[in-house]
Formats: sequence, structure tokens, C-alpha cells
Amino acid sequence: MIHWNNMDTLSSYQELKNMKTVQLAKAMAGENGAERVKNYTVPMGAGLDFNFGARPVDDEILSVLSKFAKEAQLAEKFAALYNGEVINTGEKRMVLHHMTRGQLGENVVADGVNKRSFYVEQQKKAAEFAHKVHAGEITNAAGEKFTTVVQIGIGGSDLGPRAMYLALENWAKVNGCFKMKAEFISNVDPDDAAGVLANIDVAHSIFVLVSKSGTTLETLTNESFVKDALQKAGLDASRHMIAVTSETSPLAKSPDYLAAFFMDDYIGGRYSSTSAVGGAVLSLAFGPEVFDMFLQGAGEADTIAKNEDLLKNPAMLDAVMGVYERNVLGYPTTAVLPYSQALSRFPAHLQQLDMESNGKSVNRYGEPVDYVTGPVIFGEPGTNGQHSFYQLLHQGTDIIPLQFVGFKNSQMNTDVVIQGSTSQQKLCANVAAQIVAFACGKEDDNRNKYFAGGRPSSIIIGNQLTPQALGALLAHFENKVMFQGFAWNLNSFDQEGVQLGKVLAKKVLSHETEGALKVYSDLLNI
Amino acid sequence: MIHWNNMDTLSSYQELKNMKTVQLAKAMAGENGAERVKNYTVPMGAGLDFNFGARPVDDEILSVLSKFAKEAQLAEKFAALYNGEVINTGEKRMVLHHMTRGQLGENVVADGVNKRSFYVEQQKKAAEFAHKVHAGEITNAAGEKFTTVVQIGIGGSDLGPRAMYLALENWAKVNGCFKMKAEFISNVDPDDAAGVLANIDVAHSIFVLVSKSGTTLETLTNESFVKDALQKAGLDASRHMIAVTSETSPLAKSPDYLAAFFMDDYIGGRYSSTSAVGGAVLSLAFGPEVFDMFLQGAGEADTIAKNEDLLKNPAMLDAVMGVYERNVLGYPTTAVLPYSQALSRFPAHLQQLDMESNGKSVNRYGEPVDYVTGPVIFGEPGTNGQHSFYQLLHQGTDIIPLQFVGFKNSQMNTDVVIQGSTSQQKLCANVAAQIVAFACGKEDDNRNKYFAGGRPSSIIIGNQLTPQALGALLAHFENKVMFQGFAWNLNSFDQEGVQLGKVLAKKVLSHETEGALKVYSDLLNI
Repeated sequence: MIHWNNMDTLSSYQELKNMKTVQLAKAMAGENGAERVKNYTVPMGAGLDFNFGARPVDDEILSVLSKFAKEAQLAEKFAALYNGEVINTGEKRMVLHHMTRGQLGENVVADGVNKRSFYVEQQKKAAEFAHKVHAGEITNAAGEKFTTVVQIGIGGSDLGPRAMYLALENWAKVNGCFKMKAEFISNVDPDDAAGVLANIDVAHSIFVLVSKSGTTLETLTNESFVKDALQKAGLDASRHMIAVTSETSPLAKSPDYLAAFFMDDYIGGRYSSTSAVGGAVLSLAFGPEVFDMFLQGAGEADTIAKNEDLLKNPAMLDAVMGVYERNVLGYPTTAVLPYSQALSRFPAHLQQLDMESNGKSVNRYGEPVDYVTGPVIFGEPGTNGQHSFYQLLHQGTDIIPLQFVGFKNSQMNTDVVIQGSTSQQKLCANVAAQIVAFACGKEDDNRNKYFAGGRPSSIIIGNQLTPQALGALLAHFENKVMFQGFAWNLNSFDQEGVQLGKVLAKKVLSHETEGALKVYSDLLNI
Repeated sequence: MIHWNNMDTLSSYQELKNMKTVQLAKAMAGENGAERVKNYTVPMGAGLDFNFGARPVDDEILSVLSKFAKEAQLAEKFAALYNGEVINTGEKRMVLHHMTRGQLGENVVADGVNKRSFYVEQQKKAAEFAHKVHAGEITNAAGEKFTTVVQIGIGGSDLGPRAMYLALENWAKVNGCFKMKAEFISNVDPDDAAGVLANIDVAHSIFVLVSKSGTTLETLTNESFVKDALQKAGLDASRHMIAVTSETSPLAKSPDYLAAFFMDDYIGGRYSSTSAVGGAVLSLAFGPEVFDMFLQGAGEADTIAKNEDLLKNPAMLDAVMGVYERNVLGYPTTAVLPYSQALSRFPAHLQQLDMESNGKSVNRYGEPVDYVTGPVIFGEPGTNGQHSFYQLLHQGTDIIPLQFVGFKNSQMNTDVVIQGSTSQQKLCANVAAQIVAFACGKEDDNRNKYFAGGRPSSIIIGNQLTPQALGALLAHFENKVMFQGFAWNLNSFDQEGVQLGKVLAKKVLSHETEGALKVYSDLLNI
């Protein structure tokens, strides 16, 4: 029996609030610190490890966090989710993105079909299509091969696939899997589409229109933009476009598209990178085999996330430590800091994933909660961030928990030795150094050069950023966000907060405005 | 006589803390709201307007904020800065970035030269060099023109110039000023340099090495990377590289560079976009005339920032309202949301500018302060953000003040009409709608669809994102950050917080580690 209770009704949460907190600088010092770092590590799947040596917990707090995870029934709630319960209470929908990468529990049937089979079928269709494009069996009207794929989508149809594409672009190039360049058009700003179109060879481009409903204003507007450009180039748009949409959308059976791959209402945009939303563009760019490896990594992480033992479940552990930092220690922001240039847009994807899922003030029944929920998430790759906002992270007046990611090896395996070390060694040395600098600080009589320390972090360590590692990394954060939503008793799968702006924007465009809205409309010359 | 006092010693600050706060949703409703938005606007230079109708202030609070600005001597402190006082107390240096775009006060002489003349001379040298490159007078060894410029730098040598380049790339293309594509290499991650080099035509590329000291590890490492690639392509590296550095650096008179343009210790990296750091790459990409227009816009905003009347000084006003939101209302984070795809990396630049300048816990004398200082800054362009993290901004448990930017016209002037409006109109309608949605909220019996409102924002409105507008926009934020540093009594111009990580990274690379640092080094295989 699952109890969907608010967090502040849990006795383990009250217990957490009354516990002695960890003095991190002290805990991380000397050989005790070394032992912590050695012990506080959990495998995440796909060869990744989650090391939480520098998080503000100790064995006592971990033991109460285990109680908390049990009392909040995090494992049971995940099982309910993957077995097809209606977890998205706001929209009254099941939540099935895990099914795109594996069968975690019972068969789930919806709309008269087995959903796992449905997602596999869409992947197969996209794979076959991609193979035909790569083989030159599907070409432009002149019989020439496509060389570029352009995704047209916004939000989850843009951020996730774009981050994943950038993460694997160089890996694919050096591993002989690079099939075609991908570009992305997302913003309704006309300069976005115009800018991308000016930089590509339209005649050899295939466009992937991604809209679940087939009605997303930005996406349909940008589709028109693209069709205009194709027509002006004397090209038949229907030979250049495919759709990723729901089976019931107006795009699904339109002759305007070379092919259509289906998604459904049980996968939210921000959780759709492993569905056809990511599958079509990534399979065209790198081949379906690479997309399969990505799914395999995500599936491995999902399986580990089923573990009821908190200390063997890195996503659940990350989640409850995050709740502890947010609600007990009171830290309102979290930074994501991958030491990998390929992950340059991964923080932007996590920003959506986390903030759109858990940026809520009401519980899953629509009742206001009396505690803070999702934090602000931001980040940039290291070492770049070190020369930017790390000043505030080290010496600012607020404490910001940090999520590092690092890999032992680069993707491209091209390197130089300067001052006795490779660039990759320098990169890794920097992330190791930062963790310790943040945690331990440094005494100095000059207060301007003094570091208080006590700034918590964890690090995910991998051998190399491969498709499998990327899949596991993505699934880790998806599952972390899900577990935090369970802990806070939120519905992490709707987004009612985006509606009001849409309604008011329509009013502006139809000139039905008054008061402040009319003045802003006038100032902006609408 | 200037008094450098901590903010909590100011009587006007105590007065602010005791004032009745504004109920924004109520204040912004109806015709009163319309009047607020009409009245609360200040010109910023270069045709931009700063509209603060939706900030949580009223005439009473503004009047005390004026007192506060006077008591904190913000105008006098700015005058001291541009007249050459040693404002950077930590490093005992003057702060002269304003001189790159105008003479605001007295002549400032340092190192035996008039600094305004020095900066103008560097700009002239860079302009002449760029003209020669564009005219084909400076070419590669085969006598062929350069087609790509690659900036090698990190932090301020990367974020600002990269954001400015992206902001003007499409504008330059449609206005006939586009001379060559720019790329950027920053991260010590070897995949950054390798990835960029794999995508460019090295034989026709000119590289700008940017390092003030000539010793920045990331930058020198990436230079070696590039030299390796040039050599492997059978090219003479010294025919492909220029340097931007200080006159005393080892790079200044090296035969390894085609030319060297100088910066100095009086301009910090994050304030260097208007110096040779931005000038060399932007003049090569768009021509020196465009860079001049950019400087002109920045100069206009600087002149306005001298105004002692708070209500005629948008940078000062933005600054003190920000302090009010941070210290009186207690909001720890600020989002920057440009409704312009061209400004996609502008928030990342502001993140460095703001967080590295004011993320400090000690005052300019190195004494701990008893109040919070610089907030976390993050942001992405709209409308993209609307489909991402806006959920939390609208309905999350924390209030995040917002800084919008919008332009009446697009840069490329290519547009489509869908559902009766252009994309540009849709873009502007969305930002207008968001401001009102955040401020006013919406009642709903379904609490999941309820918006509390009361979420403050301001908007900077321009006609079009031109080089002048971009310069004024940049200078506005630079000056805002400066004024906030004055209010908090910080030194906004050093960055001691980045040092500890550097020291520890060196230890890791020389294997002089113990304790936790050794374990992390082992885990990362260093």
C-alpha cells in the first residue's frame, strides 16, 4: 500500500532536521577524509561511479536517510510508476519513459497496445529509415544523399537531443560512426531559423519536425520558415521533412512528411531523449547502433535505480541527499559542472529536467506544501567555469552544492604534453583539486585569500564519455529528479506553470489587452 | 571625501529594511499598473530603455533608494574609479576598462603613459591589422586570404568576446560587414581544441592567443595544440598567430606572432570585451568599424551612468533595486532572459561578470561582511526558457527576480506570418505576456493552475540588436555590477577565490598529494 504523504508528515524527516550536521572541512581532512572518499562510492551502470565523499553526510545521517527513503516509499513509488500507475496526477497519465530503454516490471498496456512493444517498434522504424538515408536509398529529389539533419523543436524536443548530439559528436567522429551533422532550430525568434538556414546546404538537409500535439506554436512557425526556404530553393518540402509526433496529431498521416515516428502522452518532453524525439535525429546523425548503445546505458542505470537499498542506488541516494541539502541545510541552488567540453549543454538540459519537474508549490493532489521544493539548477563545463563563476562558489556568502562529472579519458584521444602532463591529466587534476578546495578550504591570515570550505559536492566518474556512459548519466539525473519529486510528494510530470504566459501571449497577438499588458505591448511595438 | 563603509552602517539601508514592501500583483493591476509601467522607464543610451515597472518598488522605496545611493556615494565612487583611484584594493590597481570607450573624467596616467591614448592606440593597431587581413595584404604563406579567426583564451578572454561575436554574427551578415567566421577554444579539455580544429580549415585560419600574463595554463596548452596542428599541416605557425597580452609578457615581442596588441593590469578579464581582448577578434570578424560602433554604444551608457540622479541612471537604479531584492527581500538568485537568440551566450558572460565580481564575503579591506552579497546569475534566451525552467520561476517555492531583454525588430529581417502575426511579433508578445504573468499571477480554484504572481522583473527594450545597442547593454551590466560592489563595499575587481584550486591542481599534477586529494587523484587515474 503506497501512502502519498507530504514530506513534513514523515517522522524520519523530522529526525533529519534534529540531527547534528557534518562539519565537512573537518570530515574531509587527513586520513579520515581519504577513507570517506574511498567508501562513499556506488556503481551507476555503464562503468560510471557516483562518489559522494564530499557530500555533507556521515554514517548516522545516511542511516536516517535510508529510513527516510523507506518511509517515503521511494522504491515502491518507482515500481508503481514503471508498472503503469497514473503517476502524473495533474494530467491523469502514466509515466513511461523508462520503457523506451527496457522492461523494468510488468507489461503496461495503454491505448490497446503493449507500450514497450510500441516504443521498440518506433525505434525500429527510425532505425530502418536512418539506414536507408545512410545507404542513399532515401535521398533528395535529385537523388543525392542528405548530409545534414535539422531538428525543429523546442523545450524537451530541443534541449535533450541537442545536449546528447553535442556529447557524442566528437566521439562518433573518431569512432567511425559520424553519419551527418545535426543542427537545431528552436526559438520563435526569426533570427534563429534564419541563422541556421543561412549556414546549411538546404538541398541536402533533412528536417525532423518534433511536436507531440502537432500544435506547438514555435515549432509550426519554424516549420513554415523552413518550408519557405525549401520552396525558394526550388525544392519539394515533402522530400525533406519527417515528423516525430503522436499518432493522433494532424502530422501523423500527412503526405507532407517522408515518414512519421510516434511518441505518446506518457512521455513528457523533458523525459523524451530516449524516445523517438531523440531517436530520429541521433540515429540519423550517428547511426541507430549508437542510439542503441545510449539506450543500453540508460537501461543499466534504470535497473540499478530499482534497488531498495539506498546505499546501492545512486539516483535515490543523490535524490535524498539533495533533499537534505535543500530542506534541512537550506541551500536553494545546485550547480552541475561537467569536466568535459562535450557536455557543454548537458547542464541546460538538466536545468529543464529538474526545474520544470520539481519547480512546484503544490503536491500531487494540488494542495500547497509547507516546504521548499526544486532548487535552481545551473552550470557550465569545467575548467571554463573555474575562470568564471567559481569565485562566488568558493568565497560567496551562500553555499551552493555542486555536482561534478569527470572522465579518465578524452573522447578524441588527441593530446599534448605541456609541463609534464597531458591536457586530459590537467583537466582531471583540476576537478580533483576543486572538490577538495571546496570541501576543505584554506586558512589564511589575509581574509581575502581565506577559504572557509564546507562546500559540498559529489562527482560522477567514468572511463570515457561513450554513448553508454551518456545514457547512464542521463538516466541517473532523470531518476534523481523523479525520486525527489516522490520525496516532496509532487507531480513531477506536468507543467501547468507554462500555461499562463501562453494565454497572455495570445491576448497580446490578438490585441485584447488592457492595463500593464497593453503598455508593454505598445512599448514592444506589437 | 569618500567613505568606504559597509552597507549595514548606512542609515538608509536600515530605513529600507523597515519599509512596507510592495505587493507587486496588486501594484501592477489595472490602470495603476499601466501608469507604473509608463512612468518607470529610463533611457540607457544607444536607443535602449530600462523599464522597471515590474520591480518591487514604489515612489516611497525609490526615494529611500535615492538616499541610499547618495549615502553609499555611488556616483562619487564611480568618479573616483574613472579618475584613476586604486579601486582594486586587493591587487592595488586602478580600474580602467571604461577608458577603452571614452574619456569620462580626468586624464589618467599609469606606467608613464596616458591610458586613454594607450587603449586608443591599441584599437588603431588592431584596426589596421584587420584592414590588412581583409584586404589580403596579410595572408598565409601561400598568399591566400584568411577565412576564419580562432580566439584562444579562457574566462574573460572567451565568454565576453564569444557572446559579443554570436550577438552580432547575423547582424553583420545582413549588413554586409561579415568578414570571417570566428571560433573559440577555451577549455583545457583536449576535446575542445581537437573538436574545433577538426571543423576548420587550418590553412586559412588566423589564431588570436589571449593571455594577459602570457602564463595562463589552459591558453598556453591550447596554443601548443594549435601549433601542433599547424605543423602537421606543414604550415608555419608564426604566419597564423597573433597575441593579445600585456607589454611585459613573454608573448609581447616574440617572433612567434604576426602581431601583438596590448592590454594591461587595469582591465580585468571579465571587463575586457571592449579592450584588445574583444577588439582583435571582433575587428577581424566584422571589421573595425563595427567594433567602433560597439564601443560608441558602451560609451553612451557609461556617460549616463555618471548621472547623480538615481532616476536618470539606469545602471545605478538597477544596482540598488538588486541590492534591495537581495538584502531586504532575501532573493538569492537572478535570471537573465534575453528574448533574442543572438544573445544566447550573453547570460553566460553576465554570469562571470557578476558572480566573479561580487561573489565575495569580505569587504575591500579584507574584513568579513555581515550581509549577503552577489547572487547566483543564470539564464537562457526566451522563448526557449519558457519551455524549460520557467515552470519553477512561475510556480516554484522561491522567488527569482528576472531581467528581460527584448527588441522590436529582428536582426535578419526574414520572417513569416503564421496565424496573423510574424515570428518577431510572437517573440515580443511572449516577453510582454511573461512580465505580466510573473507580476500579476492568476487566480484559479485548481491550485495546480494557480499563479501567485508577485514575481519581479525589469525589461531592457531596444529597437534592434545593433553593435551600438550591444555595447550599451554590456556597459549597463558592467556598471550595475560595479555599483553593487560599491554598495556592498566589496572589491569587485579581484578574484582570489580562483587561486586555491590552481594551487591544488598543481599538487595533483606533481603527485604531491595526500588524504582525500590523493584518493580523488587515484580515482581519476592521474
